[in-house]
Amino acid sequence: MAQKPTIPKGTRDFSPSEVSKRNYIIETIKSHFQYFGFQPIETPSFENSETLMGKYGEEGDRLIFKILNSGDFLKKVKDDLYSEKDSLKITPKISEKALRYDLTVPFARYVVQHQNEIEFPFKRYQIQPVWRADRPQKGRFREFYQCDADVVGSKSLWQEVEFVQLYDAIFSDLGLKDVTIKINNRKILSGFAEVIGESDKLIDFTVALDKLDKIGEESVKKEMLEKGISTEALQKIDPIFSLQGTFAEKISGLKNILADSEEGKKGIEELEFIQRAIEEMPLQTASLDLDVTLARGLNYYTGAIFEVAAPEKVKMGSIGGGGRYDDLTGIFGLKNMSGIGISFGLDRIYLVLEELDLFPNEAQQNTTVLFINFGEKEALYAMKAIKKLRAAEVNAELYPDEAKMKKQMNHANKRDIPFVVLAGSKEIESELFTLKNMKSGEQFSVSVADLIGKVK
Amino acid sequence: MAQKPTIPKGTRDFSPSEVSKRNYIIETIKSHFQYFGFQPIETPSFENSETLMGKYGEEGDRLIFKILNSGDFLKKVKDDLYSEKDSLKITPKISEKALRYDLTVPFARYVVQHQNEIEFPFKRYQIQPVWRADRPQKGRFREFYQCDADVVGSKSLWQEVEFVQLYDAIFSDLGLKDVTIKINNRKILSGFAEVIGESDKLIDFTVALDKLDKIGEESVKKEMLEKGISTEALQKIDPIFSLQGTFAEKISGLKNILADSEEGKKGIEELEFIQRAIEEMPLQTASLDLDVTLARGLNYYTGAIFEVAAPEKVKMGSIGGGGRYDDLTGIFGLKNMSGIGISFGLDRIYLVLEELDLFPNEAQQNTTVLFINFGEKEALYAMKAIKKLRAAEVNAELYPDEAKMKKQMNHANKRDIPFVVLAGSKEIESELFTLKNMKSGEQFSVSVADLIGKVK
Repeated sequence: MAQKPTIPKGTRDFSPSEVSKRNYIIETIKSHFQYFGFQPIETPSFENSETLMGKYGEEGDRLIFKILNSGDFLKKVKDDLYSEKDSLKITPKISEKALRYDLTVPFARYVVQHQNEIEFPFKRYQIQPVWRADRPQKGRFREFYQCDADVVGSKSLWQEVEFVQLYDAIFSDLGLKDVTIKINNRKILSGFAEVIGESDKLIDFTVALDKLDKIGEESVKKEMLEKGISTEALQKIDPIFSLQGTFAEKISGLKNILADSEEGKKGIEELEFIQRAIEEMPLQTASLDLDVTLARGLNYYTGAIFEVAAPEKVKMGSIGGGGRYDDLTGIFGLKNMSGIGISFGLDRIYLVLEELDLFPNEAQQNTTVLFINFGEKEALYAMKAIKKLRAAEVNAELYPDEAKMKKQMNHANKRDIPFVVLAGSKEIESELFTLKNMKSGEQFSVSVADLIGKVK
Repeated sequence: MAQKPTIPKGTRDFSPSEVSKRNYIIETIKSHFQYFGFQPIETPSFENSETLMGKYGEEGDRLIFKILNSGDFLKKVKDDLYSEKDSLKITPKISEKALRYDLTVPFARYVVQHQNEIEFPFKRYQIQPVWRADRPQKGRFREFYQCDADVVGSKSLWQEVEFVQLYDAIFSDLGLKDVTIKINNRKILSGFAEVIGESDKLIDFTVALDKLDKIGEESVKKEMLEKGISTEALQKIDPIFSLQGTFAEKISGLKNILADSEEGKKGIEELEFIQRAIEEMPLQTASLDLDVTLARGLNYYTGAIFEVAAPEKVKMGSIGGGGRYDDLTGIFGLKNMSGIGISFGLDRIYLVLEELDLFPNEAQQNTTVLFINFGEKEALYAMKAIKKLRAAEVNAELYPDEAKMKKQMNHANKRDIPFVVLAGSKEIESELFTLKNMKSGEQFSVSVADLIGKVK
């Protein structure tokens, strides 16, 4: 009664090689999160549905995976409602839990639920999978990891500086040079809308502006017109499109454009603070760029907005993003808790490192030494040495069966194991081991101690 | 519109301290898995329902969390069936995916699905959460981690030896001395049933025998009688209850009891092989004990059966278990693939280490140095030093706001941060830092280089 085994679409199995490389990225990110003073939390994979529903918009609600209640779940559904056969209406009656959609809402829930145990400002990181019932496509999965670091309980602009430094530290450590950390500020965008007299169309305005890279100036303006932004306003906007040059030059341009907006000037001040601090503490390999078209989830952010672009030679788009939000925990009843956070796109970072061949050899977790099995007596002799190698933190194993020599050597080759040890009766007599370097083909006759030294 | 935040029953939030300690256990287990030549794989959190259903018995099927189909899921349900309002019947129509219940069935599915990419024997480890819709109670959760290591594709008894060594290596490294690795063999149990002439009652027999520790000899015999095992058979069983002494003494008793069972004698041979190898390579802190009453999931195991008991002073029951199974992948169509595996009970190991105060200080991931914030200029001076500390892999941070000194020192105290650095205009002038050891109260005036040395 064999079943043909498959996995659900949009999900993935990870092979040893893939897990090792993913862990290399995760461990690198984690180390720097910790150097920067962030502490780990973990939340359950599923939350009560009311915790998640309504937090991501209508589209988000649709994409949340719901878990069916256990037992006789239909019993609770009243006959009237049941007879309507309406999937949307029946869902809350037969499903009370849902898989988390991101790490941010669970984090907000965590902060509010545990506010009395938490010492603020609270710097937390969280690296866990999330699930979305999105249509799977290249690079978009139904289960994927998010790597988030956030601080809640401080409005200090040093946090913005810290996050720029953190991005730089991590991408530098991953060997991924020349990423661009784009920064903007919600207050700049509000300022634009204010000075062109379209504050009520802030969202339409920024959604269109956000597309500048992709569709160009003319199309952006066309979209703005279609959304009801006036021709007069569009004329006032023109200087935005010609903002160019260094960070400082763009700031100076902004000062002209936003001269009449208090909000805009506040945004400029914040950007200048960050820029000054980064000048004093130069980045290792990343560069900081002011991008006034950057909006991301605008409704959400209230101050700084970040996005990290992979090096230009790789066509990948954003590999990280984040920003400041002033009222995240408000949805759960805890007011006045300013937060700021960033996220790392694990899957995309993986693809970039792969494309640029940046995974170090150490990222490939593997067995270092395979001992050939010549029979029970020889195997015991081998196992005693293996025990010593492992105590010295060397990954070592015995080929479990007394198979033909060729088969055992093939096994080592197929698994890319760099060293093989042969120990037959001759070696046992002289208390030595024959060590073979599988790459060079060299062979050495060595003691256990020398064996450890050679393979480490 | 504040909601009172809660999490689903049977699930847990993990605080920074808890995550750190859990990670310490996981990382220790992982290291040894790797020293022993196991390689990591990961499988999706949810599988197609048909992969999981029917693999864990009727009770298991009930405890599997099912995921509701997306979109208008009722549309696919025929009116006839719908009108029955039968939860059990409707489930497969509105749910096609389910959260994994353990790591073993997904592993079997993985092996069969990827059999052409895998080089056998395949040694894999997997550390991921699983979900069960069990009634939550003390120590039993609806989401918990499993830590599994398995080998498929080899019948060699060296694997059994390896797993005993692996248990010993890991519990020794965790500082958890005096665990007992209990071993038995399915063939011994079959032998018993054979010699008492009740081979057809093997399961009833072993289920009763498995309870010896808990309910005692008389009750075990009573249960056996109730299950239809004859009085004559019970008389023949008596020697089983008086098996005592060392491993070797028990083996010698078994040889008498099982003299007429070929199956039983094969079981004894296997046990003797393992015992001999362990004598040649003594365990560090664990002891190996033959427990002929050990059965665990009998239907499943075909050879060795393992269970690890915490030290007697801790009342905890089993903290690990496993065994050999001969046809795991058969359910997915891949025959003749013998496997053997063990599992570590993360939650229970955590409780045992906590109770015996065995978590080392390093298991507590925390910030090492907090810099006090005296204002913008001082903060910049501090941040430059912090950047150097982090590059030296020291966890360091700046208190983000220019708050009152007392508040900042309190923050360090509440977070158990061991060092605080104060740097005002005086320190800036002399290019020094005042380092305060929060435990001893000592203060030092140091350069950045000395600062790094002092706190590392």
